[in-house]
Amino acid sequence: MPSNAPPTIQAIRPLAETRLFRVEGVDLRFANGTEVQFERLKGSSNGAVIVAALTADEEFVLIREYACGTERYELGLPKGRIDAGETAVEAANRELREEAGFAARRLTRLNEMTMAPTYSGQRTQLVLAESLYPDRLPGDEPEPLEVSFLPMAELDEFAASGDCSEARSLAAMFLVRAYRQQRQREGAA
Amino acid sequence: MPSNAPPTIQAIRPLAETRLFRVEGVDLRFANGTEVQFERLKGSSNGAVIVAALTADEEFVLIREYACGTERYELGLPKGRIDAGETAVEAANRELREEAGFAARRLTRLNEMTMAPTYSGQRTQLVLAESLYPDRLPGDEPEPLEVSFLPMAELDEFAASGDCSEARSLAAMFLVRAYRQQRQREGAA
Repeated sequence: MPSNAPPTIQAIRPLAETRLFRVEGVDLRFANGTEVQFERLKGSSNGAVIVAALTADEEFVLIREYACGTERYELGLPKGRIDAGETAVEAANRELREEAGFAARRLTRLNEMTMAPTYSGQRTQLVLAESLYPDRLPGDEPEPLEVSFLPMAELDEFAASGDCSEARSLAAMFLVRAYRQQRQREGAA
Repeated sequence: MPSNAPPTIQAIRPLAETRLFRVEGVDLRFANGTEVQFERLKGSSNGAVIVAALTADEEFVLIREYACGTERYELGLPKGRIDAGETAVEAANRELREEAGFAARRLTRLNEMTMAPTYSGQRTQLVLAESLYPDRLPGDEPEPLEVSFLPMAELDEFAASGDCSEARSLAAMFLVRAYRQQRQREGAA
């Protein structure tokens, strides 16, 4: 199937800016001549990380945190923004310490994920964290986060249960399970 | 582990509004007395759907679409907003017809997913579409979308390849595979 030539950006205009969000208007001209005006959210400048941390017993480390967007507590993997000067792997280990009270001796960067790429530029690096040990850093959370553990062998049932709704956390755990199975098959674990 | 009493919302203020986005400031007071000011994006009023459509050969229907947020073509499942008066299942079948040129005789609503619930209220209903037949509706896309097919048996390798970055599409395909495996075990397929 032939691939389209990508559209060209004719103009970008700032439309709104708050402390956390920046909205832009983008004028696009597609290869077939169609011109369209889009709106998009700019992602945070350094992007974000999500941390799939696995204990020696093959359990994912989950946190439960109040989510202002959905107005309820949400269960998911630790995540956060990458600070200036940090690598994705450094940010992952920091977030894991701040949010869950663990650090990792082995950190592996896997996929980059997007969310709603048609209107959001946010990119999230998935980092697998293994060989964990207790190590807590003070974070900026307004209340302590609850930490719990999910056996990887129960991932399918957990995902179907609806107890975790966040798409990046769900995708990350499935990606890590596939990666670990592949690594085991290759005998490199 | 004891669950926290949820924080109370003290005030909500509109901060910015464009054609597509609405940003709010939210003053929260947590059970421990901590007061925090958050910003959040309001989701579209009726939410969104994502459609995991499976052919008779157990292949997912994928589309390739230019994404303004990431400024590149992105591969993923058909998705879109639920229109006023539509159910999630109706919206799923419409989006499948507009974006991929198929309709489904069997539609099953599975999980509800969120994206970045700490700062976004967007909710996406996952709908599994089966018993497909060709049926195209004109959509509002600026250029025709490329349609391709992914054998479900190749999902792990495909997800690891990075060819699809969108977290909801990845999570949706893994959720559907788990659901189908469960249904087969129960002999209800």
